[in-house]
Amino acid sequence: MSEATREQRILEIVQRSRAGRPRFTEQHVTMAHGAGGKASQSLIEGLLLPALGNNDTLAELADAGTLALNGATLALTTDSFVVTPLRFPGGSIGELAVNGTVNDLAAVGARPLALTLSLVLEEGLDSDELRAEIEAIAHAAELAGVQVIAGDTKVVQRGAAEKMYACTTGLGVVDPRARLSPAGLLSGDRILVSGPVGEHGMAVMLAREEFALQADIRSDTRSLWPAVDGLLAAAGEDLHCVRDATRGGVASALNELARASAVAALVREADVPVSPAVAGAAELLGIDPLYVANEGTLVAFVAERAAAAALAALRAVPGCERAAEIGEVLAEPPGMVLVDTAFGGRRVMDLLAGDPLPRIC
Amino acid sequence: MSEATREQRILEIVQRSRAGRPRFTEQHVTMAHGAGGKASQSLIEGLLLPALGNNDTLAELADAGTLALNGATLALTTDSFVVTPLRFPGGSIGELAVNGTVNDLAAVGARPLALTLSLVLEEGLDSDELRAEIEAIAHAAELAGVQVIAGDTKVVQRGAAEKMYACTTGLGVVDPRARLSPAGLLSGDRILVSGPVGEHGMAVMLAREEFALQADIRSDTRSLWPAVDGLLAAAGEDLHCVRDATRGGVASALNELARASAVAALVREADVPVSPAVAGAAELLGIDPLYVANEGTLVAFVAERAAAAALAALRAVPGCERAAEIGEVLAEPPGMVLVDTAFGGRRVMDLLAGDPLPRIC
Repeated sequence: MSEATREQRILEIVQRSRAGRPRFTEQHVTMAHGAGGKASQSLIEGLLLPALGNNDTLAELADAGTLALNGATLALTTDSFVVTPLRFPGGSIGELAVNGTVNDLAAVGARPLALTLSLVLEEGLDSDELRAEIEAIAHAAELAGVQVIAGDTKVVQRGAAEKMYACTTGLGVVDPRARLSPAGLLSGDRILVSGPVGEHGMAVMLAREEFALQADIRSDTRSLWPAVDGLLAAAGEDLHCVRDATRGGVASALNELARASAVAALVREADVPVSPAVAGAAELLGIDPLYVANEGTLVAFVAERAAAAALAALRAVPGCERAAEIGEVLAEPPGMVLVDTAFGGRRVMDLLAGDPLPRIC
Repeated sequence: MSEATREQRILEIVQRSRAGRPRFTEQHVTMAHGAGGKASQSLIEGLLLPALGNNDTLAELADAGTLALNGATLALTTDSFVVTPLRFPGGSIGELAVNGTVNDLAAVGARPLALTLSLVLEEGLDSDELRAEIEAIAHAAELAGVQVIAGDTKVVQRGAAEKMYACTTGLGVVDPRARLSPAGLLSGDRILVSGPVGEHGMAVMLAREEFALQADIRSDTRSLWPAVDGLLAAAGEDLHCVRDATRGGVASALNELARASAVAALVREADVPVSPAVAGAAELLGIDPLYVANEGTLVAFVAERAAAAALAALRAVPGCERAAEIGEVLAEPPGMVLVDTAFGGRRVMDLLAGDPLPRIC
């Protein structure tokens, strides 16, 4: 897509989202407003954007905002982490706080430069638990090649938080090769995922021990910058869009992007990588793994001519060996996500209305 | 101070802080760890810095971290806001979230460029209360000349937060005129405050209605960039250090800076501007207004030759008409803050050990 076409496209999206955004009509905030589905969309587009969105970078609803400075394009993104329990197989709130934010930068094609860390601690928090998370943050930051350069700590009374919440903000520089946008999907694009889906959310849910279910499932939390770096090297401008498939999983990411680009996404269910343990747990719990959060798995949209090279590049990145092409972008019906099921049928995969898995990040 | 002297000075501070930092030995987090006094210092320097402080900008413990990019110096700062109640005379959590972060940028001489906003909402929060804070954020951001360019929203179960917590992160560009550092205090510097002290903390405390005390006290929350801009224009390199006197008030800011610069600060109590209502409430409650948080009042250290011009410039800034010179920097005893009391005595004004006023920001 040319620069002019892309800008025109973004402008149209912004205008459309201003004209037809969902309304926020509920009297109270519910858990669903934090789940990444329809309710989240109404909160963000119906309440937050009308008040704060007097700038196109926020209105574009990318994973990170951007601004130009001295010839560079800076990216800035923020996330609060409220996961319970603090530790789960494969990770902890500290690692999520680093990787989640670095990955939002990666999703706009930005190499991470620096992080800030703001903690809300509950009075009575065990010092060893706190120390373990600070060390997890330091370790994850080192692995991601980024430094924590500013911080803040608040303490609230016992009962006014659950042990600790962490907010990280990431500053990055958009890679000159990157031409990514949530509105960048084009008919014919191939849809790639960087690994098996649903591992993070399922690992956290099983760690809560609310279900009499044991399985060897570990969070996929990791920095995705190496994966984006590899995709950019292989596909360049043919890489149209990347999204970190966190809350609401791959299904929610596809819905948001199909809507932003006014195209359809078609997923071939049989091609979606799902580990046997996640598939088994999901079946028992009646949850589609495509709706379960990931913390180290991205969805990428690549022009058909570059798709094979992009997939090969992804698979060469440590942790992304099981990357797969799972579908393609269609022109019609705009804003919809369709699934060709393993049984031969085709169904709509909509945004979720409720919240099957709260507090997974 | 020359650039070389300054850098040498900062290096010494960093080395000293690494060698002789307080230890964190408590088994649990207490409210005092969030109060900005001795306990906060032990948490930050005894636990957070040893794990995260593998970079000099964090170890310098300025209000914001800095990094160089394409010829500019960027500043990045973050703060979580957990004040209760959400609204109080003169302000609300939304205004604090903007001004507090913009002011941490101002304190390193950085003009604000962009903000991010991350919300932790309690399930059941009234939508009108949320909307009011989002509008307060938008309004304060407009007054401060900054845009919110990225955001995040999490929802936690009823009881796992108190209505809402907000984390803002600010990105700014350090003004080329600025040569500010927490280690920049020199013997002979004059100490200025930009207005009456203690208004914010006292306004919040009275709004809690825990005390049968009524007084017309309003928070001083405001953007301090215009004040810093005025100081830089009037004093240039003679402006050695600026600090936003938030948690722990002017007394804690002076203690931190005297320690960082290995100098003493002498305050003339009679010259400290305190409104009669704050002075009266403070006397009844047995709290020194110099320890009470401000959210729109800074402390500045200026070479003697530029002090009069700097004070005049401050007083010309709307909201800073009552700025005053309250004391000076002495060579000895290093790290100490002394007060010449209104009664003719001289006493030490130490960091607080406990937390007289929790959750004021």
